[in-house]
Amino acid sequence: MGEKASQRAAAFAAHVSMRNSSTEVKDTSVLGQGNPMADMAAERSKASFPVRELTYFLDGGKDMTALKERIMTELERDPVFENIDFYDLTKEQLRERTMSRIARLIHYITSEREEVSHLRLSLVGLMDMGLLTRTGVHYGLFFGSLRGSASPKQFQYWVAQGAAEMKGMVGCFCMTELAHGSNVAGLETTATFDERTDEFIVHTPHIRATKWWIGGAAHTATHTVCFARLIVKGKDYGVKSFVVPLRDPKTYDLKPGVSIGDLGKKMGRDGIDNGWVQFSYVRIPRQFMLMKHSKVDRHGNVTQPPLEQLTYGALIGGRVSMAADSAQMSKRFVTIALRYAAVRRQFTSKKGEVETKILDYALHQRRLLPLLAQTFAMQFSSDETSARHRALMRKIDSTDPSDLKAMAIVIDELKEVFTTSAGLKAFTTWACAETIDQARQACGGHGYSAYNGFGQAYNDWVVQCTWEGDNSILALSAGRGLIQRYLEVQKGGKVPAQTAYLNKLSVLKCAKAGSRKIDSVAVLSEAWEAVAAAVVSKAGESFVALTKQGLSADEAFEETSQQRFLAARIHTRCFMVLKFFDRISSARADIKSILTDLAFLYALWSIENDAGLFLQAEFFTSKQIDQIRELCNSYCRKIRDQAVPLTDSFNLSDFFINSAIGRYDGNVYENYFVQVKRQNPSKPQAPYFENVIKPFVHRDGEVELDAEELDEDEA
Amino acid sequence: MGEKASQRAAAFAAHVSMRNSSTEVKDTSVLGQGNPMADMAAERSKASFPVRELTYFLDGGKDMTALKERIMTELERDPVFENIDFYDLTKEQLRERTMSRIARLIHYITSEREEVSHLRLSLVGLMDMGLLTRTGVHYGLFFGSLRGSASPKQFQYWVAQGAAEMKGMVGCFCMTELAHGSNVAGLETTATFDERTDEFIVHTPHIRATKWWIGGAAHTATHTVCFARLIVKGKDYGVKSFVVPLRDPKTYDLKPGVSIGDLGKKMGRDGIDNGWVQFSYVRIPRQFMLMKHSKVDRHGNVTQPPLEQLTYGALIGGRVSMAADSAQMSKRFVTIALRYAAVRRQFTSKKGEVETKILDYALHQRRLLPLLAQTFAMQFSSDETSARHRALMRKIDSTDPSDLKAMAIVIDELKEVFTTSAGLKAFTTWACAETIDQARQACGGHGYSAYNGFGQAYNDWVVQCTWEGDNSILALSAGRGLIQRYLEVQKGGKVPAQTAYLNKLSVLKCAKAGSRKIDSVAVLSEAWEAVAAAVVSKAGESFVALTKQGLSADEAFEETSQQRFLAARIHTRCFMVLKFFDRISSARADIKSILTDLAFLYALWSIENDAGLFLQAEFFTSKQIDQIRELCNSYCRKIRDQAVPLTDSFNLSDFFINSAIGRYDGNVYENYFVQVKRQNPSKPQAPYFENVIKPFVHRDGEVELDAEELDEDEA
Repeated sequence: MGEKASQRAAAFAAHVSMRNSSTEVKDTSVLGQGNPMADMAAERSKASFPVRELTYFLDGGKDMTALKERIMTELERDPVFENIDFYDLTKEQLRERTMSRIARLIHYITSEREEVSHLRLSLVGLMDMGLLTRTGVHYGLFFGSLRGSASPKQFQYWVAQGAAEMKGMVGCFCMTELAHGSNVAGLETTATFDERTDEFIVHTPHIRATKWWIGGAAHTATHTVCFARLIVKGKDYGVKSFVVPLRDPKTYDLKPGVSIGDLGKKMGRDGIDNGWVQFSYVRIPRQFMLMKHSKVDRHGNVTQPPLEQLTYGALIGGRVSMAADSAQMSKRFVTIALRYAAVRRQFTSKKGEVETKILDYALHQRRLLPLLAQTFAMQFSSDETSARHRALMRKIDSTDPSDLKAMAIVIDELKEVFTTSAGLKAFTTWACAETIDQARQACGGHGYSAYNGFGQAYNDWVVQCTWEGDNSILALSAGRGLIQRYLEVQKGGKVPAQTAYLNKLSVLKCAKAGSRKIDSVAVLSEAWEAVAAAVVSKAGESFVALTKQGLSADEAFEETSQQRFLAARIHTRCFMVLKFFDRISSARADIKSILTDLAFLYALWSIENDAGLFLQAEFFTSKQIDQIRELCNSYCRKIRDQAVPLTDSFNLSDFFINSAIGRYDGNVYENYFVQVKRQNPSKPQAPYFENVIKPFVHRDGEVELDAEELDEDEA
Repeated sequence: MGEKASQRAAAFAAHVSMRNSSTEVKDTSVLGQGNPMADMAAERSKASFPVRELTYFLDGGKDMTALKERIMTELERDPVFENIDFYDLTKEQLRERTMSRIARLIHYITSEREEVSHLRLSLVGLMDMGLLTRTGVHYGLFFGSLRGSASPKQFQYWVAQGAAEMKGMVGCFCMTELAHGSNVAGLETTATFDERTDEFIVHTPHIRATKWWIGGAAHTATHTVCFARLIVKGKDYGVKSFVVPLRDPKTYDLKPGVSIGDLGKKMGRDGIDNGWVQFSYVRIPRQFMLMKHSKVDRHGNVTQPPLEQLTYGALIGGRVSMAADSAQMSKRFVTIALRYAAVRRQFTSKKGEVETKILDYALHQRRLLPLLAQTFAMQFSSDETSARHRALMRKIDSTDPSDLKAMAIVIDELKEVFTTSAGLKAFTTWACAETIDQARQACGGHGYSAYNGFGQAYNDWVVQCTWEGDNSILALSAGRGLIQRYLEVQKGGKVPAQTAYLNKLSVLKCAKAGSRKIDSVAVLSEAWEAVAAAVVSKAGESFVALTKQGLSADEAFEETSQQRFLAARIHTRCFMVLKFFDRISSARADIKSILTDLAFLYALWSIENDAGLFLQAEFFTSKQIDQIRELCNSYCRKIRDQAVPLTDSFNLSDFFINSAIGRYDGNVYENYFVQVKRQNPSKPQAPYFENVIKPFVHRDGEVELDAEELDEDEA
């Protein structure tokens, strides 16, 4: 034993004893961090309201909670839905998994009530957005088109072919083209009637008319509903829909004339096999045009429907459910960030003391609690809008289309829901994206780990802001609707509930908070109505002034774009505030108080963010705006202790949360470490060690050639 | 030939002739879309300023542009930097590529001036952020620590071992721990001095002290600089740094006592092999502690430096370069979105006419042009701050540490740069993230394709908001600095340039735009100074009031968190506006006008976003705020024609843009289609066809068991 070795041995013995003597150092450290599980339990014990009752309230009753829990259990226990490796899957693995899961979902979808399936799918969307979309492509878009646009006989035919159960037939939906997304009326694919053979010739005239973004086209669809311009005898009748077979359902060989390619990697939702499709003179029987509304007969006579507007009903459905999804997804991510904040400790003002929970920092409360309040607001406003939408759809179905007066009423209501849902879709999907990212940042560096769920969810989510109506364009369209309502009021008309504030313009114009208590339902409702009225009026007045200057309505709308956008934003926020208050009025007494605090925080925080508008409307004074900033702080402080109980009321199990640091038990570090190790088992060497690392690290110096040797002897 | 077949043949003949007769339909379509390449050329012809001169101005002179172009060419032509498949690489492929690229970069880094390398690396960061980080981990963090914290002799030793050229030694940096990110002082890894063997024993006391997020640890590093608590004779001297060998540089086997694992998938930057590291009683020679500042001698005598503050200098460097990166990355993404907007056509007001370029829509201008203006603002303010930082570093190096008076001056200046750079890092990295995402959304659905670059860049970028000082915490720290400056002024002191507005508080308090022209350098500068002064004063006054109520300074700072955050945000915006105006004053006449338009737009748009504060400060009236909204519209209209020339002035080649729809030629649809096809060559069937699709689509019905057969005969 050499000298060094004997020293080491002695030192080891000394060190082992030091481990005990140095307990002081070690324990302080552990103490500094507290005990996360105990911390979490302590948070739960602070609940000031019956958590379970709030869950029932959010779900719409005890029975709905039970149903939801049944479905959650079915999903959690099914090995096909195992999701622990979700964040490590490649595009190819995700796609394969999507289809395996659809194969399992089909059992439920074909055997249960539609409302149950709807709930099931919305839960599926929470854990695997790509899967929801792929299912939605078949059922919502493809099958939904058949249901909405096929004649009864046609519908029966496609159902017999297997469309309802995805058997022998998997659908996709060829609407958007490479150069046309938002502008459906501008699509360029043609379906030209060939009277001789009684067929349509579906054709892609040039590369920019290539069908693009077609979910399911790359690998899985056998048939598509295709949007194409109906051309009969040289006349263009505009865009209609056609069923076009893409692949042989047995062999999956492409049909002649059909070219399909994979769109490859996307920002998110790689579980959907999006593709591009080109048609080269593809022939389909005339009867494959969906003829519930427009019709082409054997001789090329075209009949068009009198009221094309009614097809908007389906569009609205998509928007409303995206608002609901925004609420749901926000629940998942505020839960993660708040649970983590309740156990993560960082910094201490006094040395040696246990560090402070980050949720106890004022700024951290400010970052997360308004988003928590907003999550409730999103749910209540989307609940209300979907209820209205469902009622309206029933009304449309039961109204006789020949009763023009009744139809006019329905159409007016449709317009309003159209406007409200457009704004709601835009501003809730944006708010949800913001929530996911803010929640990520609130978790600091750990928010960046795939295993905590933020990155994947953000990437999967944000397509909601640009599809099914780009948010900016939807907001402009909602703004147009608002200006139109303003004009109606100016002409002495009365406008319906959702823009009711326009009916009392003259009152609201002079409204002020005055000396009233700011944090009250009355004042906050009035404040939002007053400012919405002011912003919409201003946009309306600009519009009127521009038309008086000789601009066409279209030009005047274009000129007032920014104002329309602002009007839609403020109108939607106002709607969300008012619906929050409305909903609370039906709550049990024991949950009313916490809901009211949340609603106040939401309304106040929203005022703070747009303080300029409230000052311009002179509803609040500058001093009151300062008070409102302070009120935001104090409502944050007030709600802080209820943060964890509130996230518990969302009733999302760890399976759906799918985040190592967001799990129920609060044992964040253990959960996270275990998850990282499970997904990345230690390997002795990097796969690129021999190839890359070794030759680099072990390289010899660059050989320095002595070029001077080449010099001619100049001496 | 059957009847149907003969009909088809005839129809085909008819159709071929129809192709000609239907030219009308087809041409309208093509006409509707215009010609993107011609559109782009037309945009360029509108330039009202010499584009090349603006490039020189941005780069800092003709020579710098030439150098930049040389480096860009070197990177573009080198097969190791081929980037066309970048968006399809898996984590494993990215990691391998990172190391191959470092092996190539090393040639340059070890043979060129530091400023040239700096420029090279910043361009590398634009095309491959993970690569920049991995290089930065070795050179910035590991080697930078040696340079900054090793004694001259130690430094020589590690250079001789290969640290300067990554030869036989690859470094990483073990600072953050699982439970401690921001709070470096709270780290729990220990380095305990063992006097008998003259060694330190480096140890991870428990799971939460596991070194976490360590870039390069998973696979590639042989050595680390490790932050650990120095424990000598039972006394804790706080966190110091130590070199710890992790792997045998020959075999890459882990050293005894070192446990390392792969952190796996992240939101982005998967090219970095982040790992976790645990030390179990790992012994290192005493001399491996970096002893430039603190020292431990053979007998365990510890000496600590008098002025620990000076090590902040290095931290500031990281922040300043992140502000510069924010500008650079924003250039890339506003370029993509603006080029696309200049050729993408959608909707037309008159049937049959060519559709409108989306850049011609007022709202689209509003979405993108302020972000373009902001990109310039980010560059100018980061240019200014890095120049100050460089000068300060030189000053620190040349100041005699024993000259306490001189040191006090340097430290005061350091404090100021610390505050400014903290705010700048926070608000520019946030602004850049927002820019990438807004630019993506402005490209509609195509922004979601991986091949247009947004998703990858967003995911790679956003870690900037939480690392090297979480943005929220940095903003709070900047806000603290501002309150301290306010207090100095209250005590009759005078504060330096960057918060100079605090020296004229009484004047600014009564400042008003009055009847002056709003869009002027004087009014807009004054407006921003007035509002910054108002916000900082209000925060300062709250702080003073709280301390008068008996709160400690720490408590009062905590209570004013929201105000501190606001103060930092507004101060930073004010700084960016002022630096923009400053920089313009040195511009040639022929580029001054466009730069002024951009600066006005930036200042006005920023006022619009915080209108409430300007109304509260009574600098603008409500009517003027409305005018400012209108001015934003009109500056957008004014700049619109210069949008493409301005992006050209950024001088980023297609290689660096790396976006199918953002390429220089404007041929968006062809570029995009070619890229998608190249990366996703058609395969006859999905890889999961046999396994999943076929059994699902071809399934028989679920066998319905007739359970009634099992009934006992009840008859």
